[in-house]
Amino acid sequence: MISAATPQPVNLPIRPDLAGESPYGAPQLDVPHLLNVNENPYGPGPEVVATITELVTAAAAGLNRYPDRDFPALRQDLADYLARESGVRVAKEQIWAANGSNEVMLHIMQAFGGPGRTALSFAPTYSMYPEYARDTHTTWVAGRRESDFTLDAEVAIATIREHQPSVIILTSPNNPTGTALTTDVIVAVCEAALELDIDGAPAVVVVDEAYGEFRRAGVPSAMELLARFPNLAVSRTMSKAFALAGARVGYLAASQGFVDALRVVRLPYHLSAVTQATARGALAHATTLLATVDSLRAERDATVAWLRAQTYQGSPLQAAESDSNFVLFGTFDDRHAVWQGLLDRGVLIRETGPEGWLRVSIGTPQDMDAFKDALVEVAGL
Amino acid sequence: MISAATPQPVNLPIRPDLAGESPYGAPQLDVPHLLNVNENPYGPGPEVVATITELVTAAAAGLNRYPDRDFPALRQDLADYLARESGVRVAKEQIWAANGSNEVMLHIMQAFGGPGRTALSFAPTYSMYPEYARDTHTTWVAGRRESDFTLDAEVAIATIREHQPSVIILTSPNNPTGTALTTDVIVAVCEAALELDIDGAPAVVVVDEAYGEFRRAGVPSAMELLARFPNLAVSRTMSKAFALAGARVGYLAASQGFVDALRVVRLPYHLSAVTQATARGALAHATTLLATVDSLRAERDATVAWLRAQTYQGSPLQAAESDSNFVLFGTFDDRHAVWQGLLDRGVLIRETGPEGWLRVSIGTPQDMDAFKDALVEVAGL
Repeated sequence: MISAATPQPVNLPIRPDLAGESPYGAPQLDVPHLLNVNENPYGPGPEVVATITELVTAAAAGLNRYPDRDFPALRQDLADYLARESGVRVAKEQIWAANGSNEVMLHIMQAFGGPGRTALSFAPTYSMYPEYARDTHTTWVAGRRESDFTLDAEVAIATIREHQPSVIILTSPNNPTGTALTTDVIVAVCEAALELDIDGAPAVVVVDEAYGEFRRAGVPSAMELLARFPNLAVSRTMSKAFALAGARVGYLAASQGFVDALRVVRLPYHLSAVTQATARGALAHATTLLATVDSLRAERDATVAWLRAQTYQGSPLQAAESDSNFVLFGTFDDRHAVWQGLLDRGVLIRETGPEGWLRVSIGTPQDMDAFKDALVEVAGL
Repeated sequence: MISAATPQPVNLPIRPDLAGESPYGAPQLDVPHLLNVNENPYGPGPEVVATITELVTAAAAGLNRYPDRDFPALRQDLADYLARESGVRVAKEQIWAANGSNEVMLHIMQAFGGPGRTALSFAPTYSMYPEYARDTHTTWVAGRRESDFTLDAEVAIATIREHQPSVIILTSPNNPTGTALTTDVIVAVCEAALELDIDGAPAVVVVDEAYGEFRRAGVPSAMELLARFPNLAVSRTMSKAFALAGARVGYLAASQGFVDALRVVRLPYHLSAVTQATARGALAHATTLLATVDSLRAERDATVAWLRAQTYQGSPLQAAESDSNFVLFGTFDDRHAVWQGLLDRGVLIRETGPEGWLRVSIGTPQDMDAFKDALVEVAGL
């Protein structure tokens, strides 16, 4: 046996803008209460596992063949689910899916971004967006949200006109703040995007609704605007409400022209037969899986109320309005110390968002009790 | 229910270099003999399916959690398999994997290519390479192979010095010609790559051994060169020899520094828990799965011999030397007519390679009989 361990110091031509960069990702630690990456604490139950197993077993015997590149059955299932969830019916040709919303976003940036082009979002927001831009050589611009994390339509329009982005990302509910956008703001942004001239075309607007199913009653989905704006896409994920983060399935709904543009840049056979089978197995149990959403929303509202009732160093603790399965709260003089103190007590949350804030994902009632007990102790509430 | 079908003509800011492009991919047709995309005709057997099912079922209950971003167990299994197959032992930190070799190659181009940089291969070769370059804004240069599809070391070195690529891709066995490279040529290319100055570093060399397991006895793997060249990566796939095209698992072995560069550009959680489980299930049955490789190699050699024994328009038919699970043969005045004639008889092969040539994947003996019968009829052999 030859050993090919690498004895030599390695000098490699990594792109200069990547030199010294670390791989993205929150720590993956083995502690009792995992409240750091907005996972659904409730795993797929036995019936869901049984259906996934059945479909994967059927697919496994044919794994010597490449998967269907256009996955029409999964796209139809996703369209049916969206019609049920949002009341908006799109054709399967208006659905796209990939290995997580990550890859959906990468396809968007590959198709509509690139060198000489700009992508815009409004901070504080999801920290992966600048990486998609970096990885596609797209200039990244972070506009600003208000101090309550809402987005002001006038500010948004002015920022769009100033930077002339080809891709505008609106996150609703926003991560890490939990803030949902109003329809008025989304419409204003779509209209401003239509006025731009990007090589003779308007800009595209992506409303990232990764946490859409957790929105409170009466909060609309941007799905309702699809018929009005052919430059709009609404992205979703099976990671959160569907409790399927491990299966990596993100998707979007848009005009067929939008989807066809993404098909040009996708790697052929990007979505495996096993992934297609797993997603379809979970979608067959949408009702069961989404039942956890209601209890998580109730737990979320209770967590916000509890946090706001706490006093920290003589003032009420703040908790941002949340339409998501997490809550941003603070502020702390030394948030890292609070984060570490919680971790020392078996509760892993996320040190993210504006200075002084922390983000906690909504877990089971037991998780939230552990979180509250630990926070009282660590922060001296 | 609102309908969001898209009535308006859609004008979207697709990148100018993508305008009018079609999604990559061979036709996916439902015919009896699928000999067009170099799939393994033998599906995973019942024991393999049982293990995959068992591991996926175990993973399914925990799908609410994100997968392990660094998939150490799968990387160890792949390192163990490579040690067995090639006689070269690497550490699991020297292994990288992604959703198909496609995505592995994309990671390489994202890390080491990009605007202002050049990737080089030698044509005729795999038609996806220019797409990886296009999608990462890397300049693509196709050097040339000899008329017998081998690569001349002097030509290769001269081309490297002329174009100063940051990424050099050597395909061995080559697709679509089946040609394996000699160790001498690979060493010469690696040494020429070490002499380049790409922002202060040498170029990287990727030997794409997607079809490596099908090489004839005595043909070496570039795995043997890993200890010598820290700028070398050897990529493999589970799609072909492992009969796992539907599961989308490609991987490579390289120095740890090479792998760490890829980790910076991978999307977090790019490899799902289900994919990891499926791959590990198949790797547990490596001996069984690879047993088909021997029969496919024998069938391949018989197909080459048969083709060369045929007379087409007064001359012997040509078939390229093949160390792969496909054979390039020809030439035909109207190859499209031959391709169509075979398809009309239920045999789907690939219209690819230099003008006049066609490529047939090696299937079961029944597939090959159907192919030969159809070819005799269509080409009037």
